[in-house]
Amino acid sequence: MSVYIEPLARAVNALSKLPGVGGKSALRLAYHIIDMEDSQVRELCDALLAAKEEIHYCSVCGNFCQGEKCGVCSDPQRDKGVICVVKDPRDVMSMERMRDYEGTYHVLHGTISPMNGVGPDDIRIKELLARLDGVREVIIATNPDVEGDATAMYLSRLIKPLGIKVTRIAHGIPIGGDLEYIDEVTLSRAMAGRREM
Amino acid sequence: MSVYIEPLARAVNALSKLPGVGGKSALRLAYHIIDMEDSQVRELCDALLAAKEEIHYCSVCGNFCQGEKCGVCSDPQRDKGVICVVKDPRDVMSMERMRDYEGTYHVLHGTISPMNGVGPDDIRIKELLARLDGVREVIIATNPDVEGDATAMYLSRLIKPLGIKVTRIAHGIPIGGDLEYIDEVTLSRAMAGRREM
Repeated sequence: MSVYIEPLARAVNALSKLPGVGGKSALRLAYHIIDMEDSQVRELCDALLAAKEEIHYCSVCGNFCQGEKCGVCSDPQRDKGVICVVKDPRDVMSMERMRDYEGTYHVLHGTISPMNGVGPDDIRIKELLARLDGVREVIIATNPDVEGDATAMYLSRLIKPLGIKVTRIAHGIPIGGDLEYIDEVTLSRAMAGRREM
Repeated sequence: MSVYIEPLARAVNALSKLPGVGGKSALRLAYHIIDMEDSQVRELCDALLAAKEEIHYCSVCGNFCQGEKCGVCSDPQRDKGVICVVKDPRDVMSMERMRDYEGTYHVLHGTISPMNGVGPDDIRIKELLARLDGVREVIIATNPDVEGDATAMYLSRLIKPLGIKVTRIAHGIPIGGDLEYIDEVTLSRAMAGRREM
Protein backbone atom coordinates (compact mmCIF):
# COMPACT_ATOMS: atom_id res chain seq x y z
CA MET A 1 0.00 0.00 0.00
CA SER A 2 1.21 3.51 -0.77
CA VAL A 3 1.62 5.85 2.20
CA TYR A 4 -1.11 8.25 0.98
CA ILE A 5 -4.59 7.22 -0.08
CA GLU A 6 -5.49 8.30 -3.60
CA PRO A 7 -7.63 11.45 -2.95
CA LEU A 8 -4.99 12.78 -0.54
CA ALA A 9 -2.15 12.10 -2.97
CA ARG A 10 -4.12 13.81 -5.72
CA ALA A 11 -4.80 16.92 -3.61
CA VAL A 12 -1.14 17.09 -2.50
CA ASN A 13 -0.03 16.75 -6.11
CA ALA A 14 -2.36 19.52 -7.33
CA LEU A 15 -1.41 21.85 -4.46
CA SER A 16 2.32 21.33 -4.86
CA LYS A 17 2.12 22.79 -8.38
CA LEU A 18 1.30 26.22 -6.90
CA PRO A 19 4.20 28.67 -6.59
CA GLY A 20 6.03 28.54 -3.27
CA VAL A 21 4.21 25.38 -2.20
CA GLY A 22 6.54 22.39 -1.80
CA GLY A 23 5.69 18.82 -0.84
CA LYS A 24 5.53 19.49 2.90
CA SER A 25 3.36 22.60 2.67
CA ALA A 26 1.09 20.89 0.14
CA LEU A 27 0.56 18.08 2.65
CA ARG A 28 -0.11 20.61 5.41
CA LEU A 29 -2.64 22.43 3.22
CA ALA A 30 -4.31 19.13 2.25
CA TYR A 31 -4.66 18.10 5.91
CA HIS A 32 -6.14 21.50 6.66
CA ILE A 33 -8.62 21.17 3.80
CA ILE A 34 -9.72 17.73 5.03
CA ASP A 35 -10.34 19.26 8.45
CA MET A 36 -12.26 22.26 7.05
CA GLU A 37 -16.05 22.44 6.88
CA ASP A 38 -17.62 21.22 3.63
CA SER A 39 -19.00 24.68 2.98
CA GLN A 40 -15.61 26.34 3.46
CA VAL A 41 -13.92 24.04 0.95
CA ARG A 42 -16.68 24.72 -1.55
CA GLU A 43 -16.35 28.47 -0.92
CA LEU A 44 -12.59 28.32 -1.54
CA CYS A 45 -13.04 26.38 -4.79
CA ASP A 46 -15.85 28.67 -5.96
CA ALA A 47 -13.65 31.70 -5.31
CA LEU A 48 -10.77 30.19 -7.29
CA LEU A 49 -12.97 29.17 -10.21
CA ALA A 50 -14.68 32.58 -10.22
CA ALA A 51 -11.30 34.35 -10.21
CA LYS A 52 -10.24 32.25 -13.18
CA GLU A 53 -13.52 32.59 -15.09
CA GLU A 54 -14.58 36.17 -14.39
CA ILE A 55 -11.25 37.94 -14.64
CA HIS A 56 -10.33 38.97 -18.18
CA TYR A 57 -7.95 41.52 -19.61
CA CYS A 58 -9.16 45.05 -20.35
CA SER A 59 -9.56 45.56 -24.10
CA VAL A 60 -7.90 48.98 -23.84
CA CYS A 61 -5.00 48.66 -21.43
CA GLY A 62 -4.64 44.91 -20.76
CA ASN A 63 -5.22 45.23 -17.01
CA PHE A 64 -7.34 42.72 -15.07
CA CYS A 65 -11.03 43.48 -15.41
CA GLN A 66 -14.43 41.89 -15.09
CA GLY A 67 -16.32 43.52 -17.97
CA GLU A 68 -15.08 44.99 -21.23
CA LYS A 69 -13.02 47.82 -19.73
CA CYS A 70 -11.11 47.93 -16.44
CA GLY A 71 -11.92 50.27 -13.57
CA VAL A 72 -9.18 52.71 -14.54
CA CYS A 73 -10.04 52.93 -18.26
CA SER A 74 -13.76 53.37 -17.57
CA ASP A 75 -13.19 56.05 -14.90
CA PRO A 76 -13.91 59.50 -16.46
CA GLN A 77 -11.78 61.15 -13.74
CA ARG A 78 -8.56 59.50 -14.91
CA ASP A 79 -6.32 61.53 -17.20
CA LYS A 80 -6.30 59.76 -20.57
CA GLY A 81 -3.39 62.00 -21.67
CA VAL A 82 -0.90 60.13 -19.47
CA ILE A 83 -0.14 56.42 -19.89
CA CYS A 84 2.01 54.44 -17.47
CA VAL A 85 3.50 51.37 -19.16
CA VAL A 86 4.00 48.32 -16.93
CA LYS A 87 4.92 44.70 -17.50
CA ASP A 88 2.17 42.89 -15.59
CA PRO A 89 -1.39 43.47 -14.37
CA ARG A 90 -0.02 42.95 -10.86
CA ASP A 91 2.19 46.00 -11.38
CA VAL A 92 -0.98 48.03 -11.94
CA MET A 93 -2.21 46.86 -8.52
CA SER A 94 1.05 48.03 -6.95
CA MET A 95 0.80 51.44 -8.64
CA GLU A 96 -2.86 51.80 -7.63
CA ARG A 97 -1.97 51.07 -4.02
CA MET A 98 0.04 54.33 -4.13
CA ARG A 99 -3.28 56.16 -4.70
CA ASP A 100 -1.87 59.36 -6.18
CA TYR A 101 -1.46 58.50 -9.85
CA GLU A 102 -4.27 60.00 -11.91
CA GLY A 103 -3.38 58.75 -15.40
CA THR A 104 -4.10 55.46 -17.14
CA TYR A 105 -2.03 52.32 -17.69
CA HIS A 106 -0.86 50.09 -20.46
CA VAL A 107 0.08 46.51 -19.58
CA LEU A 108 2.64 44.95 -21.93
CA HIS A 109 2.14 41.39 -20.63
CA GLY A 110 5.86 40.77 -20.82
CA THR A 111 9.12 42.51 -21.68
CA ILE A 112 11.41 42.16 -24.68
CA SER A 113 13.74 39.26 -23.93
CA PRO A 114 15.71 37.85 -26.88
CA MET A 115 17.17 35.18 -24.56
CA ASN A 116 13.67 33.76 -24.06
CA GLY A 117 12.61 34.37 -27.64
CA VAL A 118 10.29 37.27 -26.75
CA GLY A 119 10.49 40.01 -29.37
CA PRO A 120 8.67 43.38 -29.66
CA ASP A 121 5.82 41.72 -31.57
CA ASP A 122 5.14 39.24 -28.77
CA ILE A 123 4.12 41.87 -26.22
CA ARG A 124 1.39 44.52 -26.43
CA ILE A 125 3.46 47.28 -28.09
CA LYS A 126 1.23 47.56 -31.20
CA GLU A 127 -1.76 48.15 -28.92
CA LEU A 128 0.17 50.89 -27.10
CA LEU A 129 1.07 52.67 -30.36
CA ALA A 130 -2.58 52.54 -31.42
CA ARG A 131 -3.55 54.42 -28.23
CA LEU A 132 -1.13 57.33 -28.50
CA ASP A 133 -3.52 59.79 -30.15
CA GLY A 134 -3.92 62.79 -27.81
CA VAL A 135 -1.42 61.41 -25.28
CA ARG A 136 0.98 63.95 -23.70
CA GLU A 137 3.25 61.67 -21.69
CA VAL A 138 4.21 58.00 -21.59
CA ILE A 139 5.75 56.95 -18.26
CA ILE A 140 7.72 53.72 -18.56
CA ALA A 141 7.59 51.71 -15.34
CA THR A 142 9.02 48.37 -16.44
CA ASN A 143 11.32 46.74 -13.87
CA PRO A 144 14.93 47.97 -13.62
CA ASP A 145 16.41 44.73 -14.99
CA VAL A 146 18.02 43.94 -18.36
CA GLU A 147 14.71 43.10 -20.07
CA GLY A 148 12.82 45.98 -18.48
CA ASP A 149 15.52 48.51 -19.41
CA ALA A 150 15.78 47.18 -22.97
CA THR A 151 12.01 47.43 -23.36
CA ALA A 152 12.05 50.97 -21.98
CA MET A 153 14.78 51.96 -24.43
CA TYR A 154 12.92 50.37 -27.35
CA LEU A 155 9.65 52.13 -26.49
CA SER A 156 11.35 55.48 -25.97
CA ARG A 157 12.96 55.29 -29.45
CA LEU A 158 9.57 54.44 -30.98
CA ILE A 159 7.49 57.05 -29.18
CA LYS A 160 9.76 60.09 -28.80
CA PRO A 161 9.82 60.82 -32.57
CA LEU A 162 6.02 61.18 -32.40
CA GLY A 163 6.53 64.30 -30.26
CA ILE A 164 5.27 62.66 -27.06
CA LYS A 165 7.15 63.08 -23.79
CA VAL A 166 8.60 59.74 -22.64
CA THR A 167 9.74 59.37 -19.01
CA ARG A 168 11.13 56.54 -16.91
CA ILE A 169 10.30 56.19 -13.19
CA ALA A 170 13.25 56.98 -10.91
CA HIS A 171 15.55 54.27 -9.60
CA GLY A 172 17.55 54.84 -6.45
CA ILE A 173 17.66 54.23 -2.72
CA PRO A 174 14.28 53.01 -1.44
CA ILE A 175 12.70 55.03 1.37
CA GLY A 176 13.84 53.60 4.69
CA GLY A 177 16.84 51.99 2.98
CA ASP A 178 20.33 52.22 4.45
CA LEU A 179 23.27 53.34 2.27
CA GLU A 180 25.46 50.76 3.98
CA TYR A 181 23.39 47.88 2.64
CA ILE A 182 22.46 49.15 -0.82
CA ASP A 183 24.07 47.32 -3.76
CA GLU A 184 26.48 49.19 -6.03
CA VAL A 185 24.22 49.13 -9.08
CA THR A 186 21.36 50.83 -7.23
CA LEU A 187 23.81 53.29 -5.70
CA SER A 188 25.29 54.20 -9.08
CA ARG A 189 21.76 54.69 -10.48
CA ALA A 190 20.90 56.87 -7.49
CA MET A 191 23.99 59.01 -8.11
CA ALA A 192 23.30 59.30 -11.82
CA GLY A 193 19.70 60.29 -11.10
CA ARG A 194 20.57 62.96 -8.48
CA ARG A 195 18.66 66.24 -8.54
CA GLU A 196 19.42 69.77 -7.47
CA MET A 197 17.79 70.68 -4.14
CA MET B 1 -12.62 52.13 -6.90
CA SER B 2 -11.00 49.50 -4.68
CA VAL B 3 -7.54 48.32 -5.68
CA TYR B 4 -8.68 44.74 -6.33
CA ILE B 5 -11.63 43.75 -8.48
CA GLU B 6 -14.21 41.64 -6.66
CA PRO B 7 -13.36 38.09 -7.88
CA LEU B 8 -9.67 38.70 -7.14
CA ALA B 9 -10.41 40.07 -3.68
CA ARG B 10 -12.63 37.06 -3.00
CA ALA B 11 -9.97 34.54 -4.09
CA VAL B 12 -7.30 36.34 -2.04
CA ASN B 13 -9.60 36.32 0.97
CA ALA B 14 -10.37 32.60 0.66
CA LEU B 15 -6.71 31.68 0.10
CA SER B 16 -5.43 33.75 3.00
CA LYS B 17 -7.48 31.60 5.39
CA LEU B 18 -5.22 28.62 4.64
CA PRO B 19 -2.46 27.90 7.18
CA GLY B 20 0.85 29.61 6.42
CA VAL B 21 -0.68 31.74 3.67
CA GLY B 22 -0.64 35.47 4.46
CA GLY B 23 -1.96 38.35 2.40
CA LYS B 24 1.05 38.58 0.08
CA SER B 25 1.26 34.86 -0.65
CA ALA B 26 -2.51 34.70 -1.16
CA LEU B 27 -2.19 37.45 -3.77
CA ARG B 28 0.69 35.60 -5.41
CA LEU B 29 -1.33 32.37 -5.50
CA ALA B 30 -4.37 34.19 -6.90
CA TYR B 31 -2.28 35.74 -9.69
CA HIS B 32 -0.89 32.32 -10.48
CA ILE B 33 -4.38 30.81 -10.60
CA ILE B 34 -5.58 33.52 -12.99
CA ASP B 35 -2.62 32.69 -15.24
CA MET B 36 -3.24 28.92 -15.09
CA GLU B 37 -5.12 26.99 -17.77
CA ASP B 38 -8.86 26.59 -17.16
CA SER B 39 -8.43 22.82 -16.98
CA GLN B 40 -5.67 23.08 -14.37
CA VAL B 41 -7.78 25.25 -12.08
CA ARG B 42 -10.66 22.83 -12.41
CA GLU B 43 -8.31 19.92 -11.69
CA LEU B 44 -7.03 21.65 -8.54
CA CYS B 45 -10.56 22.34 -7.29
CA ASP B 46 -11.74 18.82 -8.12
CA ALA B 47 -8.80 17.39 -6.20
CA LEU B 48 -9.55 19.56 -3.16
CA LEU B 49 -13.27 18.73 -3.19
CA ALA B 50 -12.54 15.02 -3.68
CA ALA B 51 -10.07 15.04 -0.78
CA LYS B 52 -12.74 16.62 1.40
CA GLU B 53 -15.59 14.36 0.22
CA GLU B 54 -13.93 10.98 -0.22
CA ILE B 55 -11.66 10.88 2.81
CA HIS B 56 -13.34 9.50 5.94
CA TYR B 57 -12.04 7.99 9.15
CA CYS B 58 -11.49 4.23 9.45
CA SER B 59 -14.20 2.66 11.64
CA VAL B 60 -11.58 0.54 13.42
CA CYS B 61 -8.55 2.75 14.00
CA GLY B 62 -9.67 6.28 13.07
CA ASN B 63 -7.04 6.70 10.33
CA PHE B 64 -7.84 8.40 7.01
CA CYS B 65 -9.54 5.99 4.62
CA GLN B 66 -11.69 5.90 1.53
CA GLY B 67 -13.93 2.91 2.27
CA GLU B 68 -15.03 1.35 5.56
CA LYS B 69 -11.59 0.27 6.75
CA CYS B 70 -8.21 1.88 6.13
CA GLY B 71 -5.36 0.23 4.22
CA VAL B 72 -3.60 -0.85 7.40
CA CYS B 73 -6.65 -2.38 9.13
CA SER B 74 -7.72 -4.27 6.01
CA ASP B 75 -4.22 -5.64 5.32
CA PRO B 76 -4.08 -9.30 6.51
CA GLN B 77 -0.26 -9.09 6.73
CA ARG B 78 -0.34 -6.49 9.52
CA ASP B 79 0.05 -7.81 13.06
CA LYS B 80 -3.27 -7.12 14.82
CA GLY B 81 -1.58 -7.99 18.17
CA VAL B 82 0.35 -4.69 18.24
CA ILE B 83 -1.37 -1.29 18.29
CA CYS B 84 0.50 1.98 17.95
CA VAL B 85 -1.48 4.85 19.49
CA VAL B 86 -1.07 8.26 17.82
CA LYS B 87 -2.75 11.63 18.11
CA ASP B 88 -3.54 12.41 14.48
CA PRO B 89 -4.10 10.64 11.16
CA ARG B 90 -1.10 12.58 9.86
CA ASP B 91 1.05 10.83 12.49
CA VAL B 92 0.05 7.51 10.89
CA MET B 93 1.39 8.83 7.58
CA SER B 94 4.70 9.70 9.27
CA MET B 95 4.95 6.26 10.86
CA GLU B 96 4.10 4.53 7.58
CA ARG B 97 6.83 6.47 5.80
CA MET B 98 9.29 4.57 8.06
CA ARG B 99 8.12 1.35 6.33
CA ASP B 100 9.24 -1.12 8.98
CA TYR B 101 6.33 -1.12 11.41
CA GLU B 102 4.17 -4.21 10.92
CA GLY B 103 1.47 -3.64 13.53
CA THR B 104 -1.72 -1.58 13.41
CA TYR B 105 -2.63 1.91 14.63
CA HIS B 106 -5.15 3.65 16.80
CA VAL B 107 -5.76 7.34 16.17
CA LEU B 108 -6.99 9.24 19.25
CA HIS B 109 -7.96 12.40 17.31
CA GLY B 110 -6.58 14.57 20.08
CA THR B 111 -4.83 14.34 23.43
CA ILE B 112 -6.08 14.90 26.94
CA SER B 113 -5.78 18.62 27.63
CA PRO B 114 -7.67 19.97 30.65
CA MET B 115 -6.53 23.50 29.71
CA ASN B 116 -8.53 23.25 26.49
CA GLY B 117 -11.39 21.33 28.07
CA VAL B 118 -10.47 18.02 26.39
CA GLY B 119 -10.99 15.09 28.77
CA PRO B 120 -10.48 11.33 28.30
CA ASP B 121 -14.04 10.96 27.01
CA ASP B 122 -13.51 13.50 24.23
CA ILE B 123 -10.87 11.45 22.41
CA ARG B 124 -11.10 7.90 21.04
CA ILE B 125 -9.99 6.05 24.22
CA LYS B 126 -13.20 4.00 24.56
CA GLU B 127 -12.70 2.71 21.03
CA LEU B 128 -9.13 1.72 21.90
CA LEU B 129 -10.23 -0.22 24.99
CA ALA B 130 -12.85 -2.05 22.91
CA ARG B 131 -10.08 -3.27 20.55
CA LEU B 132 -7.72 -4.73 23.16
CA ASP B 133 -8.90 -8.35 22.93
CA GLY B 134 -5.93 -10.48 21.80
CA VAL B 135 -3.55 -7.52 21.78
CA ARG B 136 -0.02 -8.19 23.12
CA GLU B 137 1.47 -4.69 23.05
CA VAL B 138 0.25 -1.10 22.93
CA ILE B 139 2.94 1.35 21.76
CA ILE B 140 2.13 4.94 22.75
CA ALA B 141 3.48 7.41 20.21
CA THR B 142 1.76 10.62 21.26
CA ASN B 143 4.00 13.71 21.02
CA PRO B 144 6.51 14.39 23.82
CA ASP B 145 4.69 17.48 25.12
CA VAL B 146 2.61 18.01 28.26
CA GLU B 147 -0.65 16.77 26.70
CA GLY B 148 0.99 13.85 24.90
CA ASP B 149 2.80 12.70 28.02
CA ALA B 150 -0.33 13.05 30.17
CA THR B 151 -2.32 11.00 27.66
CA ALA B 152 0.42 8.37 27.55
CA MET B 153 0.41 8.13 31.36
CA TYR B 154 -3.38 7.90 31.48
CA LEU B 155 -3.50 5.13 28.86
CA SER B 156 -0.71 3.18 30.50
CA ARG B 157 -2.56 3.19 33.84
CA LEU B 158 -5.73 1.98 32.12
CA ILE B 159 -4.18 -0.74 29.96
CA LYS B 160 -1.33 -2.22 32.05
CA PRO B 161 -3.72 -3.77 34.63
CA LEU B 162 -5.27 -5.78 31.76
CA GLY B 163 -1.96 -7.67 31.45
CA ILE B 164 -1.02 -5.98 28.15
CA LYS B 165 2.50 -4.67 27.59
CA VAL B 166 2.44 -0.85 27.24
CA THR B 167 5.49 0.90 25.73
CA ARG B 168 6.35 4.49 24.84
CA ILE B 169 8.51 5.36 21.82
CA ALA B 170 12.00 6.62 22.72
CA HIS B 171 12.76 10.32 23.02
CA GLY B 172 16.31 11.56 22.63
CA ILE B 173 18.80 13.06 20.23
CA PRO B 174 17.50 12.90 16.64
CA ILE B 175 19.75 11.17 14.09
CA GLY B 176 22.05 13.75 12.53
CA GLY B 177 21.50 16.02 15.53
CA ASP B 178 24.37 17.80 17.21
CA LEU B 179 24.77 17.63 21.02
CA GLU B 180 25.85 21.27 21.03
CA TYR B 181 22.49 22.46 19.72
CA ILE B 182 20.12 20.06 21.50
CA ASP B 183 17.90 21.63 24.18
CA GLU B 184 18.31 20.54 27.81
CA VAL B 185 14.95 18.78 28.07
CA THR B 186 15.70 16.50 25.12
CA LEU B 187 19.18 15.90 26.48
CA SER B 188 17.88 14.95 29.91
CA ARG B 189 15.35 12.59 28.27
CA ALA B 190 18.16 11.08 26.20
CA MET B 191 20.25 10.50 29.34
CA ALA B 192 17.34 8.99 31.23
CA GLY B 193 16.57 6.69 28.30
CA ARG B 194 20.17 5.47 27.83
CA ARG B 195 20.75 1.79 27.15
CA GLU B 196 23.58 -0.62 27.74
CA MET B 197 25.63 -1.31 24.59
